[in-house]
Formats: sequence, structure tokens, C-alpha cells
Amino acid sequence: MKYIPDQQMIETVLSRLADVLEQRKQESADTSYAASLYHKGLDSILKKIAEEAAETVMAAKEGDKEKLIREIADLWFHSLILLANENLRPDQVLNELERRFGLSGHKEKASRKLV
Amino acid sequence: MKYIPDQQMIETVLSRLADVLEQRKQESADTSYAASLYHKGLDSILKKIAEEAAETVMAAKEGDKEKLIREIADLWFHSLILLANENLRPDQVLNELERRFGLSGHKEKASRKLV
Amino acid sequence: MKYIPDQQMIETVLSRLADVLEQRKQESADTSYAASLYHKGLDSILKKIAEEAAETVMAAKEGDKEKLIREIADLWFHSLILLANENLRPDQVLNELERRFGLSGHKEKASRKLV
Amino acid sequence: MKYIPDQQMIETVLSRLADVLEQRKQESADTSYAASLYHKGLDSILKKIAEEAAETVMAAKEGDKEKLIREIADLWFHSLILLANENLRPDQVLNELERRFGLSGHKEKASRKLV
Repeated sequence: MKYIPDQQMIETVLSRLADVLEQRKQESADTSYAASLYHKGLDSILKKIAEEAAETVMAAKEGDKEKLIREIADLWFHSLILLANENLRPDQVLNELERRFGLSGHKEKASRKLV
Repeated sequence: MKYIPDQQMIETVLSRLADVLEQRKQESADTSYAASLYHKGLDSILKKIAEEAAETVMAAKEGDKEKLIREIADLWFHSLILLANENLRPDQVLNELERRFGLSGHKEKASRKLV
Repeated sequence: MKYIPDQQMIETVLSRLADVLEQRKQESADTSYAASLYHKGLDSILKKIAEEAAETVMAAKEGDKEKLIREIADLWFHSLILLANENLRPDQVLNELERRFGLSGHKEKASRKLV
Repeated sequence: MKYIPDQQMIETVLSRLADVLEQRKQESADTSYAASLYHKGLDSILKKIAEEAAETVMAAKEGDKEKLIREIADLWFHSLILLANENLRPDQVLNELERRFGLSGHKEKASRKLV
């Protein structure tokens, strides 16, 4: 059976999660994981990026696909926390990918060899 | 001025990029960067994940926000190559984030403290 | 003032530390940091390697030399724990470096361009 | 058969290698690997640290002990390049480990629980 995602539901996940993570910045450290990480500061967030990248590598080496999905989710989640900490938005990352690879519909064909 | 993304354009970037990266798997190594990386194999892809995570850390330490966006774009791009190499889709990562944080519209309020 | 190390003292540090870390493998998890890490298992040790590498990168970017020395010490220390966990010795790593770069006294001159 | 290293030979490896790496700093980029890395600059050295840490993680996950020794050798070698680039010496790292763990002969017994 082919995997068919519910586009309407999933495609706003990064934006919605970024909204929630933005709110967490106002809150005290003991109210949520994200708030506690903001309070620990940038270096703690960066250590988590490195740690989640390592766990992604380990899951891939194990050949455990369910675990790999969870570790990449962790890596992207901590990327979102880093972006929020720096007052940036995931849309800016996606725009960079769009710009770099020319993925808007009408240009797709011509741009393929950029990737 | 507030940053206002074009939702219609950007929100399909990950899916479209995944489609392109899926096609690259059939092609010879010298036709594109992605194809050359698939041919080098899993370990080469994983080394790039680690390297891009390190470059993200460095850009954040430099406080260079434009560079940070580019490095996170690189990190996510190589995550997509890893997913494609393992026959996985970014939608599965986004579904994991959605499931974990309960970010579909009607549940958003109740779930906030999960993040 | 030139930095003059006490060769007799320092040069056995890695071997002595490896001896202590070997003993820790027999002990219960709550008796020392090393013992607790062995009990958590290989993946926990590998996550520490990745984390200490990231902290080394951060200290270097900060230009804080005292901190950089401490972070490289952490990185080497966790390398020693990894070696002990795999029943290996730091001497085997040093032998590999010696073999690779031909650093024994009488060959030093000829080998320089290997590094 | 127990592994018996030649202490006289191996224990000066780090110091000798540091001496060679110090000399490489004066040389043009095309004369050796180390010289080329110094010319590329700090960020290139730090990316190698991250990459070698990832390769150490991969070798450990594969359970390939010969490869693990080679990857830790690579990790330590690039640590030495980083130290040289910052005008530091491996003796300072070993002194930090000695200081932290109190490994000089006469204190060894009392200090054991520090590790």
C-alpha cells in the first residue's frame, strides 16, 4: 500500500510548531521542555543539535527505519527551537531551499539539475 | 516589516524536493550532486549530516543569521537525501512531529504543554 | 615563558587513565561517572563523543583557549571510555598514529611529508 | 596473548606529532595535508573534527574494532591540528586530564572515584 499523506494536515506542521515554540519563549523554564532549553541558552540548544545528528547517524547505521524517522523528527524539532531562539522562522529555511533549487511549479522542469 | 511567507509556494517545498531527490536515485553519479552522494553510499550521506550539523553550530556561534538559515537548509536538504536513500518520505517525519505534539488545528490548544 | 611540561609525569596519563577506566567496568553504576556510562551502554557513550566534539567546536569558535583545552580533554576522555568499552587500549591508537606517520626517532626526518 | 606496547616508542607519539604539525604551519598549502588544512582555516579544521567524530560513531556501531582504532586516531590527529592552529600543545590537554583525575603515581589510589 502506497503511503498517502494528508497534505492539508501535515503541511502546516512546521509553521504551527514554530508558533507554539515562539510562545514558549515567554514562559518560565519549568513549564515545558522548550522553555527549559531557551533558559539554558544557545550552547545547550547547539549541543542538542549535535546529539540529535549523532542519534540520526546511529539509527541509520542500525537500519531501523522507525527509529530513523523519530531521530530526524528530533533533529528538525531542535532546529526549530534554534530558529526560534534566533528569532527566525522555518519558512525562511524553506524559502532558501525553494530559491536554491527552484522548486516552484512552473520552474521545476528546468531546475532539476540544480539538485 | 513582518516577514510574510507565501504559504502556497513554500509549504510544498519539502514534498517537491523529495520528489526530485527520488528521481535522482535512478541516475548516474555524474549527473547531479544528489546522484553522486547516493552512489558514494550511506556512510557518505551520514558524514554530510554530521558536517552540516557542525556548520549549523558554527553559524549560530558566529551570530550570522543569514548563514544560519543556509546551514539549516543544508542540514534539512541532507536529511531529505538520507530519507530518500532509505526509501522514506519527509511526510513521515512531519507526521511524527504532528503525532507527537498534537498540532492538528482542533487539538492545538489542549496539546500545547507537550512541546 | 615557554611552556615546559614534566614529561615523566604527563606521558603516562593516557595509560594510567585507561587502567582506571578498565577497573570501572567491574563496578556498579552508582559508584562513578565512568561506571554509570558503561551501564547506559554504547549508544550513550557515542552520544557523549558527538556532544564533546560539538563543545570543542564551540570553544574554538569562542576563541577561549582554556575552555578549548578542557573540551579536548573531555573529548579524549570519552574516547578512552569508548576504547575501554570495546576492550581496546589507547596504546593501539597511538601505535596507529606512529605507524601512519613514522614518528619513531630514527625515521622522523624521512617521514615528515607523510603528515 | 596480552597486548604489550613498547612504552618507549609510543609514549612520545603525541609530542613528536605535535612538533611536526607545528613545523607544517610555516609551509605552503600544497606541501602536506596538514599545511593545506591550516591554509583553509579554523572552520575547515572544525568540520573535520565533527566528521571524524561521526566516523568514530559509525565504526563503533559497525563493531569493527580495527576501523574504530583508525577513526579515533583520525579524531586525535585532527585534535592535534586544531591545538597547533591555536598555538596549544597536547601536553596541556594531558596536564588537564592529570589535574582532573589526579593520576600522578602517589595520588592514584585516593583519586580513583574522581573518574
